[in-house]
Amino acid sequence: MSRVFNFSAGPATLPLEVLEEAQKNLVDYKGLGLSVMEMSHRSPEYKEIFDGAIESIKTLMQVPDDYTIMFLHGGASSQFGMVPLNLLSGSGKADYLNTGAWSKKAIAEAKRFGTVNVVASSEDKTFNYIPEVTGDMFDPEADYVHITTNNTIYGTVWPTLPETGNVPLVGDMSSNILGQVYDVSKFGVIYAGAQKNIGPAGMAVVIVRNDLMGHSLDITPKMFDYKTHADGGSMFNTPPCFAIYIAGLVFDLVLKQGGVAEMEKVNREKAGLLYDFLDNSSLFSSTVKSTSRSIMNVPFVTGSDELDKKFISEAAAKGLKTLKGHRSVGGMRASIYNAMPYEGVKTLVDFMKAFEVANK
Amino acid sequence: MSRVFNFSAGPATLPLEVLEEAQKNLVDYKGLGLSVMEMSHRSPEYKEIFDGAIESIKTLMQVPDDYTIMFLHGGASSQFGMVPLNLLSGSGKADYLNTGAWSKKAIAEAKRFGTVNVVASSEDKTFNYIPEVTGDMFDPEADYVHITTNNTIYGTVWPTLPETGNVPLVGDMSSNILGQVYDVSKFGVIYAGAQKNIGPAGMAVVIVRNDLMGHSLDITPKMFDYKTHADGGSMFNTPPCFAIYIAGLVFDLVLKQGGVAEMEKVNREKAGLLYDFLDNSSLFSSTVKSTSRSIMNVPFVTGSDELDKKFISEAAAKGLKTLKGHRSVGGMRASIYNAMPYEGVKTLVDFMKAFEVANK
Repeated sequence: MSRVFNFSAGPATLPLEVLEEAQKNLVDYKGLGLSVMEMSHRSPEYKEIFDGAIESIKTLMQVPDDYTIMFLHGGASSQFGMVPLNLLSGSGKADYLNTGAWSKKAIAEAKRFGTVNVVASSEDKTFNYIPEVTGDMFDPEADYVHITTNNTIYGTVWPTLPETGNVPLVGDMSSNILGQVYDVSKFGVIYAGAQKNIGPAGMAVVIVRNDLMGHSLDITPKMFDYKTHADGGSMFNTPPCFAIYIAGLVFDLVLKQGGVAEMEKVNREKAGLLYDFLDNSSLFSSTVKSTSRSIMNVPFVTGSDELDKKFISEAAAKGLKTLKGHRSVGGMRASIYNAMPYEGVKTLVDFMKAFEVANK
Repeated sequence: MSRVFNFSAGPATLPLEVLEEAQKNLVDYKGLGLSVMEMSHRSPEYKEIFDGAIESIKTLMQVPDDYTIMFLHGGASSQFGMVPLNLLSGSGKADYLNTGAWSKKAIAEAKRFGTVNVVASSEDKTFNYIPEVTGDMFDPEADYVHITTNNTIYGTVWPTLPETGNVPLVGDMSSNILGQVYDVSKFGVIYAGAQKNIGPAGMAVVIVRNDLMGHSLDITPKMFDYKTHADGGSMFNTPPCFAIYIAGLVFDLVLKQGGVAEMEKVNREKAGLLYDFLDNSSLFSSTVKSTSRSIMNVPFVTGSDELDKKFISEAAAKGLKTLKGHRSVGGMRASIYNAMPYEGVKTLVDFMKAFEVANK
């Protein structure tokens, strides 16, 4: 089959240019006689790849100099533990915003290491909206406030960042990092699993304001201490070298394509096309409150389980793959990250139109 | 440059067949229209890859049914913490054997979570031998005994496993897993970073006897609990999918080549060739006591820093790469894992002979 449009929520589609570049160099990287997978992480050749990737994401996200960027093992799930273990050494209290399954996992883990206050939640409506929060809702003594900026399963995004005053904001940005512009200086910590907008699964990008490191709880495993990895330049142990290499290729492509602002513009166009159709369709509808809609993950339903199933199956046959929604929402979900071309969303919408006519 | 002989200690050389197979499928895996890196880890296509890899290593190592095999994030360094956090809930005491830098790191981490008794050490002679131990040296109340089966930096290997009676033996097998035969049933836990005999950096193979799970300390982060990953079939969170895919290709190749016993046979031939030369050379010598020598990592010296430097540089020019020894030992080190062909060691020895003559 020729290349499909892959709407997977993650691991997700990657830019074709990146895959082709990686393929070309897979056995023999730039004539050096070995693969990137075989390079010592301490070699000058690999150091160039690694440093380039750090530099590129620093430029892309305009990361201020008082932050450290790390490429770590373990995905975002490790960060659910690392955040409290590193930051809960002040008052031992943290404020969390509960906007989905991943927020809940982060909350459950933090509760094991300190006092967690869930400031607001949208669980009453299967997380189909982002709750309204105001600055006075936060505990000024909290060690941090945690949000999930974009909720992959439910297709919601925080329309603006909560105002947390002097309390550091921690953002799980796994599903919209590099997909829309954020001001890094508004955060104390940003973390993101790679497998959506960055690269292959098996690494996380973690950006920490330097003053927040070095105060971990005594019980913190060494590999869970931000300072371990900051001091070691993400090479305290052998990093996930190949995943970092692919991420670097993705970063360079995003830079070439105009940076994160340009990505956001295109992503808004892609999402707009889909939401406009959904809002005017007599068959399909969005499951998400209009002011909370993600531009990365778009869940939708027909209202009939049978038709949903038929749609997913017929779409797959047309090369529109992995459109099944998460079991907690049902229906369909189109994940339209940076690497999903406009043409992919257009093809999907055209197919939805045809399906609607055929199934009236 | 054509393909080099890469003697890196890790990330290390991979079989050419594996790299070529991965290259062929990198953009379009078996005609499915997407890369393995883009597959949902829950998809049937990826499940087949994952299950195949588990099955293959189970066969290769003849893992008994009462053990769980896991592919985890974080490398062996995470295991330095996971082992004590999961196993120290009995007496809170553990016995460690200190045979190198990695043993020391494991010891340092375990000390933070319990009482560590260093039963024997070879630190007095820069770890150039394996200490003799007898069963009566171990604490019968210890929760486990920890060894590093093969010491990558110093080029030593335990010639036989210590007799620990009913106390579970934990083995860091990072640098000789699949390189020589071990009886898994002699261990409670085996772990290994992938980047030597298995695949790309960014994953660890962890094999745990089932009765040793489910008793972790309360302070254990969820991602550090073996039970989390055993219950989730290594998919509690998104696993390092691509690294697992490459590992699976390596496992299948080893199976095709005759299994671990055959690997060990070839590895002994390769190592024998090198040690025989070293023992008879008037210029080069092994740094390791003869009864403790690794068949995976072979450090050697000329006795002159200047000649060592010259050798490394001239060897590199001949396509014999990454021969520089670890700074704590100096000189050279040839890592000759499964994927290093006999021809590579032969070429190295031939060059050493020529160098010896030229530098008399």
